[in-house]
Amino acid sequence: MQSNVETVSVVRLEGGSSSVIEERLVREAPLTIILNDRELVTLLCSPTGARELAVGFLASEGLVAGQGDLKRVIVDDARGVVRIETYDDRSGTNEIFKRFISSGCGRGATFYSAADASAINKVTSRARFSSEQISGLFAEFQRRSELFRSTGGVHSAALCDAGEIVAFAEDIGRHNAVDKVFGRCLLESLALEDKMVLTSGRVSSEILLKVARRGIPVLASRSAPTDLGVRLARDLGVTLAGFVRGKRMNIYANEWRISNDSRRLGYPEDT
Amino acid sequence: MQSNVETVSVVRLEGGSSSVIEERLVREAPLTIILNDRELVTLLCSPTGARELAVGFLASEGLVAGQGDLKRVIVDDARGVVRIETYDDRSGTNEIFKRFISSGCGRGATFYSAADASAINKVTSRARFSSEQISGLFAEFQRRSELFRSTGGVHSAALCDAGEIVAFAEDIGRHNAVDKVFGRCLLESLALEDKMVLTSGRVSSEILLKVARRGIPVLASRSAPTDLGVRLARDLGVTLAGFVRGKRMNIYANEWRISNDSRRLGYPEDT
Repeated sequence: MQSNVETVSVVRLEGGSSSVIEERLVREAPLTIILNDRELVTLLCSPTGARELAVGFLASEGLVAGQGDLKRVIVDDARGVVRIETYDDRSGTNEIFKRFISSGCGRGATFYSAADASAINKVTSRARFSSEQISGLFAEFQRRSELFRSTGGVHSAALCDAGEIVAFAEDIGRHNAVDKVFGRCLLESLALEDKMVLTSGRVSSEILLKVARRGIPVLASRSAPTDLGVRLARDLGVTLAGFVRGKRMNIYANEWRISNDSRRLGYPEDT
Repeated sequence: MQSNVETVSVVRLEGGSSSVIEERLVREAPLTIILNDRELVTLLCSPTGARELAVGFLASEGLVAGQGDLKRVIVDDARGVVRIETYDDRSGTNEIFKRFISSGCGRGATFYSAADASAINKVTSRARFSSEQISGLFAEFQRRSELFRSTGGVHSAALCDAGEIVAFAEDIGRHNAVDKVFGRCLLESLALEDKMVLTSGRVSSEILLKVARRGIPVLASRSAPTDLGVRLARDLGVTLAGFVRGKRMNIYANEWRISNDSRRLGYPEDT
């Protein structure tokens, strides 16, 4: 069983005194994805949820579309390798590699152009949530984020329906946490058009595009969005909430999906 | 003149009430680096400091080693493009592109192996700092991080000598902020072996490797390191401080370079 934390001895300096304390550190490990016998990429990530991360990464890169595309997924936790075979091999060309350079690699290394956004269908889901639902789901989200509380070094992401969290993941990488959630959705063929994504991290254009591409109507974050994240949310019909803290939140785009009351809404919304 | 912030109208929900407020958002813009007439990568970043970012990125990727390698750097802020010509073109092969996939792309997408670390010389600088110096430099670092205070959405990085900050940068990306600082160092041919790097962000293996490759003896962060960051710091002779807050800090590796007192140390250290 992989663990996401490791304990090390560190020297604590405080004022003029020094002591040795034990501290829990978040683990970081390489995960190599081999797609149809070809080494595709090595991600640095938290070690748990390797299967979900590998599948979610391929989905985010457009290399698999659904659970039916997957012939076999073999996880070797000890070696940090996930081998995936698909029925339709789209990884044989250098196009994929060029794509990764411009769009796959986070670090900020990604690509946004009008063409990129116009290739994505506008999200039209009529799902709605109340501000109280969002606050309640966020409170649960924070409670689940144990690793963050114990180490201060990870991001969390979750997929929720109107009542509860249906998939949750943590990772040292903002993108990885979101991809793990989507990987789980793909492996379990979960419907997404009535769901909401929660993230602890900043909403940059890349995260927004990931959510929009899957037709998910609402994205809520504990942090701030970028201007480009907001612009894309407005263009692509995604409801974007940020700085969700307690009963407070800011809505940056498509606020019609959020009612500022305590009604329990969902999908379809018939009121 | 580029700006790193943009003001938008947002809907603030709080309890049962709603209002429209103006909020300052951090900007996110694509920056395309063209190296010797070949499009190399598009980064998403804060718009200021494009020259420093492009040069620092190339240096981090091993494509330029010093200021003397640069024939010409042309910045087109309006189009978000930096064209760089080098005397020695190392970008002509696909090797570079493969390297970016495994090692350049952050997002966590990077590469670490024993070979990777063993290709880096152990940092042997005898520079030392006192805990009070570090606390003082960090206080100044926080004061400079205006964009963070006004938007909550960026990372900062700085290079310091024993007395003051000599280079400072902010960016939406943790890696970009560090690369901007190193780009400036390269453009100004600053010596690095007596310096310290400050970062607001988590210390992952990639940041540690960037610092170690340049022979910089001390890295101090406001945040937590990962276990791999700590392991590499110990292996590569880098002094690593984390959770620097007020007069408190944790030292994870090579603590001999930090004295727990108020002496003003520096380089070389003769006491």
